[in-house]
Order: sequence, then structure tokens, then C-alpha cells
Amino acid sequence: MGTLAEEIFSYKLGRPVEQGETVVVEVDHVMSHDTTSPLAIQAFRKLAGVSSGRVFNAERAHVVFDHIIPASTVAAATLQRDVRSFAREQDITILQEGICHQVMPEKGFVVPGAIIVGADSHTCTYGALGAFGTGMGSTDIGVAYATGRSWFRVPSTINVRLVGELQPGVYAKDVTLEMVRQVGVDGANYRAIEYTGDLVERMSISERFTFCNMAIEMGGKAGLVAPDETTREWLRGRTDQEYPMLAPHNPRYERVFEIDASRLEPQIACPPDVNNVVPVGQVEHVKIDQVFLGTCTNGRLDDLAIAASILQGRTVHPETRMVVIPASREVYREALRLGYIDTFVQAGASVGTPGCGPCIGRHFGVLAPGERALTTMNRNFTGRMGDPTAEIYLGSPATVAATALTGHITDPREFLS
Amino acid sequence: MGTLAEEIFSYKLGRPVEQGETVVVEVDHVMSHDTTSPLAIQAFRKLAGVSSGRVFNAERAHVVFDHIIPASTVAAATLQRDVRSFAREQDITILQEGICHQVMPEKGFVVPGAIIVGADSHTCTYGALGAFGTGMGSTDIGVAYATGRSWFRVPSTINVRLVGELQPGVYAKDVTLEMVRQVGVDGANYRAIEYTGDLVERMSISERFTFCNMAIEMGGKAGLVAPDETTREWLRGRTDQEYPMLAPHNPRYERVFEIDASRLEPQIACPPDVNNVVPVGQVEHVKIDQVFLGTCTNGRLDDLAIAASILQGRTVHPETRMVVIPASREVYREALRLGYIDTFVQAGASVGTPGCGPCIGRHFGVLAPGERALTTMNRNFTGRMGDPTAEIYLGSPATVAATALTGHITDPREFLS
Repeated sequence: MGTLAEEIFSYKLGRPVEQGETVVVEVDHVMSHDTTSPLAIQAFRKLAGVSSGRVFNAERAHVVFDHIIPASTVAAATLQRDVRSFAREQDITILQEGICHQVMPEKGFVVPGAIIVGADSHTCTYGALGAFGTGMGSTDIGVAYATGRSWFRVPSTINVRLVGELQPGVYAKDVTLEMVRQVGVDGANYRAIEYTGDLVERMSISERFTFCNMAIEMGGKAGLVAPDETTREWLRGRTDQEYPMLAPHNPRYERVFEIDASRLEPQIACPPDVNNVVPVGQVEHVKIDQVFLGTCTNGRLDDLAIAASILQGRTVHPETRMVVIPASREVYREALRLGYIDTFVQAGASVGTPGCGPCIGRHFGVLAPGERALTTMNRNFTGRMGDPTAEIYLGSPATVAATALTGHITDPREFLS
Repeated sequence: MGTLAEEIFSYKLGRPVEQGETVVVEVDHVMSHDTTSPLAIQAFRKLAGVSSGRVFNAERAHVVFDHIIPASTVAAATLQRDVRSFAREQDITILQEGICHQVMPEKGFVVPGAIIVGADSHTCTYGALGAFGTGMGSTDIGVAYATGRSWFRVPSTINVRLVGELQPGVYAKDVTLEMVRQVGVDGANYRAIEYTGDLVERMSISERFTFCNMAIEMGGKAGLVAPDETTREWLRGRTDQEYPMLAPHNPRYERVFEIDASRLEPQIACPPDVNNVVPVGQVEHVKIDQVFLGTCTNGRLDDLAIAASILQGRTVHPETRMVVIPASREVYREALRLGYIDTFVQAGASVGTPGCGPCIGRHFGVLAPGERALTTMNRNFTGRMGDPTAEIYLGSPATVAATALTGHITDPREFLS
């Protein structure tokens, strides 16, 4: 009896657990990245007197280098050198083949029923595979590295029902933005968000990643989709681990939102808030200096495929730059094999090495004062991509590709063949 | 009668010119890049009272964005925004498809007999095609943008004769390093260096670029190779422009160096001077944190091919990072088509967008204190790639690839099949 979040905690603890209870659980995996690891390591070191001085399990403790890779400053290089030295000491393999939230699932670490904590707010992405993933501060992650455990208040759950058939030119990202508009940027504070409905059931894991990734943009502790055959299929070949096909049973939801996606148009989140969402037609006049296709929200193969189909044989507008960053090495190599990378380069884009790229404004595509970007990112906060007077708009990979061609925000349906 | 430098200046001025003379000539092309353009524009603006306020010829004035692309900081982004605005005002097309010294020749701007000035010290690269290319300060380039003219003292010439057959595992870069060792870092101050000999005659334009690129590392004003059938072949399809096949006639050389390449081993330039050159065997114990394959010295298709042949099916050493940056979009796309990019990515390298990359220590692979890099760059100066306590070694693409695999400086002949 319970929500998917309750089912997961009950499964882990071997007893029925209800929302509101405070529990301590053994976590399956703990993760930090190049910019959060230094503080997590500091916290870990402080426990040296009361801990063994070793991480709880080097196979389940992960460090991913993705945020400022390769290092863009001496300061970043120095921090990375120190994290490498910690990883060597602890027998942790540093993963440097893409964005943490893409690489962790690809490696098979994320399975239904798992509880995963990460020193990155978008750790909620893992819910797409039916795992309870959540972001924590570096100090909590340092403690989890030492003990293999974390405490949680089992969250109450908001149910978002997504129904209907998407029109051509409208994608999972558009639905996600509409959802953030309706729920609000704090409408799901500390709640789990459970995505259900026929649209979710038909969607690929990549599209479910997009939904779950942005749960935190509504304040959500986790975004969850119950595992199904699509989940099993995606995990095949990635893990031999057994996992439970947990599902909600007569769940008690705090609130239910229903979104009929069949009437949805392409959406844009305007600066400076993710819920500042309008149909693309309302902002088509806005001139764009830089577009960015990538991130843990929309840097996967299907995202690149959509953009490549629009850019194929065309050229990026001379007054707009385009940055493309595949989410992982696996995505990069597939995109390369399928000709997408060549399409992007031929169109005039700068294709970067897998990682977070300009999403965090620390390298590879920083914005100047007054510039405007349209990106597939999950956040449009003031100053996130560089100068605080720069503006960030969010849209789907298709909208980003169409905009790259025209130099102003553009409805991708104009380029559908 | 004269050296190739004298022949070029005589051709341009339509009268016999001798070394030591000071002349003013119309230049064929003027170039600056993202980090030198701001000062060049400043100088150009100061001439506004006495000039038309327009560049002498928008088809022959070039701005290349290559040094910090995409921008890694708000400061760089802001300068680039201002340079873009200047280019728009002057109807200059900004070239953003690779390193200036690769893109200028690819675009057909560099032909035998041309005189080209650039706000970058490695403008001497263009001598590989029989053009007199030379680097100048941004102020001189600002004046050239306004007037289309520059003044020169016609240089005297040092002749470097390269003879013999290279052994397997030994490349143009090794010969170049040996040459810098013999001539010294100031041995060719303000001289032209004319490369002759059967080895030069057999070499590709790409290899000649490597020689000429590093003329400035001996203080050379220009590095020159007389145009031949190889030159004609390389230019075919790149330009329809007619050009003179100038050659030295009974040249009066200030000094002659002869290098028999047939006995040469792979060479390494050790920090902190480019002439601090030893055979690879003497430094094989040196542990390397990062290798970098790229730059205007060695970022071309043949360089990538050599490295890919060594890396194929192998993995970069876990304690070493590898950065690969093709010199231009043309090189990138060819490398992609031939499978080299996939080989690099599969081996674990970070492949960047065409440009200068970590060569100038401003983004994409900056070194931490105490780290060591082996690179295909032209300079190993203290602090160039990041922290001043980091060390830079220089070698050939083959040596860089072999070193990537072992984690310490390695003779590439160990990996030759």
C-alpha cells in the first residue's frame, strides 16, 4: 500500500514505511562531481576520527568529472588534481565520460528500487528508471561516503498525469516546461513527483529522464516513473543486477495534476524563472546570440537526432553561435556513427567533449553582458551562464535547432518536413 | 638575384630589393584573432582622424576566433562581443572554424609571393606555401587594417638544409626540434629562415607548415619554402588566384645549417626553452599528467592519423588525460570520416572544437601546480598552459600518442607495427 516513494523505502527497509516517517537507509550509490567533490571530501575527512578513513564501498562511491572538463582555470585544475589524489587513495575510479546523470545510468548503477544520493541537485533524474535519486549538499554526501547511509523524511507525493498524444514539433521538454508552469517552482517542495498516464507509458527512457530531471525545478525531492518493460529493455546489457519491479499500490497522493499534451504547443521558459513559460509564438521576436544543445535534460541521442534533422544541410545564422555537447561518450559515439556530429560541425556548431558545458557558466560558451541564449538546459536563472545581465531561455532541442538557423526564437514546426 | 625573401619583396615592389633595405609594401592580407583584435581595433580607431574609418579592404582583412572559443569567461565573452560588433560594422566575416594559421591557408588566402601580416607570432607558418607571413604587434596590425600597408626591413636569411630520409617513428616535428636546438632560440632573430634540401622537397605541405610554424622559435621573422608542384597541388581547388612561382636565385645566405635527418631519433624539447632538446630516450622516465595533440604546429590530418594509428583499440593511461583538438573544421570533418575522432574518443580522449585549445592556458586543459604535459605545441614556456610550476614538454604527435598510453614520456617506436 503506498506511493512509489513509499514502496521503495519499504522495500529497502524490509518493513512498511509511510510518508512523513524519518528513516535511515543504506544507499545503493553515492556520487559527487568535480565541483562538489572537494567539499564532500572535506566533510569525509572530518569524520576520520570516528570512521575507518575509507569510503564505505569503492564500487558504490562514484566521482564523475563533468562540470569543468577539461579544466578551464588553474583553480579548477588544482581542485581536480586533489580530487584525483583522493580517488586514487580510496580506489575510486573517476568517471570522465560525460554528465554524471547520464553516465551513472549508462553504467548500470541505476535500477528500480535503488536509493542513490548525489552532490548535485539533478540527481532526481534517476527516477526515470524507478530509482529514488536525490540531490544533497556536499557535507551529507561526505557522510554518505563514510557510512553508506543517509537519513530521509519519506516524502509525500504529487502525481502528475500526462495524457494524450504529442503533436509534431512538440516534445517531452515542452510538456515538462508546461508542467513546471502549472506546478510552480516551489509547488513540489520536498515532495516526490510521480509521473503517470498513457503519455509517460509510451515514452522512452530518454524522455522520462527529461521529466524526472526537472522535478527539482518544482522543488521536488525526487521524480519517479514506475518501472515497466521499457525500463527493463533499457537496462538490458547495462546491468546483471536483479531489481524489483516496484509500483504504487492504492497510493495516497497529496495532489494530482493532469496535463493533456495533445493540445500543447512548443513552450519556452523565459528568464529568470523556470515556470515563466509561454508558447513559443509569444517570444518569436527575441534575437538569440547563442544556442546550446546538451545537458542532463536534453543531451541524449534522440535530442541530437531531432536537432540534426532540422540542421541537416543548413547553416547556423551568422549572428548566432551554436554549442552542442553530447551528454556522454556513448551518446557522442552513436551520434558520430549516425552522422549527427558531422551535421552539426558542417552547420557551423562548436561540438564539445561530453560534459555539462556552458550550463554552469564556467567554461565553453560563457555569455557576455546583455547577450541572450536559448538552451535545452533545465535552469534559466540570472547569471547562470555568465554575466548577470545575460538572459537564458529554455526550450526543446527542436526549438533550439530552429532558432540556430534563424537567429531569433523560432517555432520548430516551421522546419518540419 | 636573391634569397626567397628578397625575391618576394622585389616581386611586390616591382624592383630589385636587397636585404637590409627598409620598405613599405601593400600587404595581401591582414589578420588578427579573438585575443589580439581588441588592441588592433583600438589602434585602428585612433587613426580615425586621418583614415576613412573603414578597413582598407574587407575581403583582405580577417578576424579569426580561435584562442578562447567558445568563450570561457565573461571577460573573454565581452571582448568577443565587441570584436563581433567591429566586424559587423566593417563588413568583415569572422572566421570561426579553426586556428587562424590553418584556416587562412585553407581559405586560399595564402599563395606564393603574398605578404601577410598577422597579430600572432606564428603567422610565419604561411611560408610553407612560399608566402612571406610574419607576426606583428596589435598596434601595427591596427595600422595595416587602416592602410593596407606595412613597413619592413627586408631580412637577411639563414638557410637550413634538411637532407636524408626519416627513420620510422621520426617526423617533421622531431626535425624541427633538432633544428631549434642547433640554431638556438635567438639564432635567427629578425632573419628569414629558408628551408631547402631533398627532405623538404619530399615533404607534404602539412610537414612544411610544422617547419615554418616554428621559425619564430628561433627568432625568425619568416620561415620559407620555395613553392613547387606540391604547393600547386595543395592550392588546387582552394584558390583561383594566379601566383608567381618565386625561387631563390644565387642567394646570399648569412649562415647555412645542414641537418641529416636520417640519423635522427624522436626528440623532446624539455621545459622551459624550445631549444632544450634531447632524444626521447633521455627523458623516458618523466611521468605525464596530460597530453595534448593539436595546434597550428601539429593539429592537421596527418598528425591525427599518426596518433590514431597508435591509439587504435587502446586506452589512455588512467593517470593521464588526453586532449585532442583538430586544427580546423576541415581537418575535424576529415578525421571524423576516417574514424580518427572515434578512435580518440573510444581511447578516452577529450576531443575539442577546432581552435587553439590548451596551447595558451586559458581554457580546455589548464594545468595544475606541479603537473606535467607533453604536447605537440610549439612552445614550452613557463606558465604557458596554466600554473607556473607546471612543466611543458614538446614532441611529435606519435610521441604524444605513445605517451598517452603509458603515462610517461615514451618512444613511439615501441608502438610501431
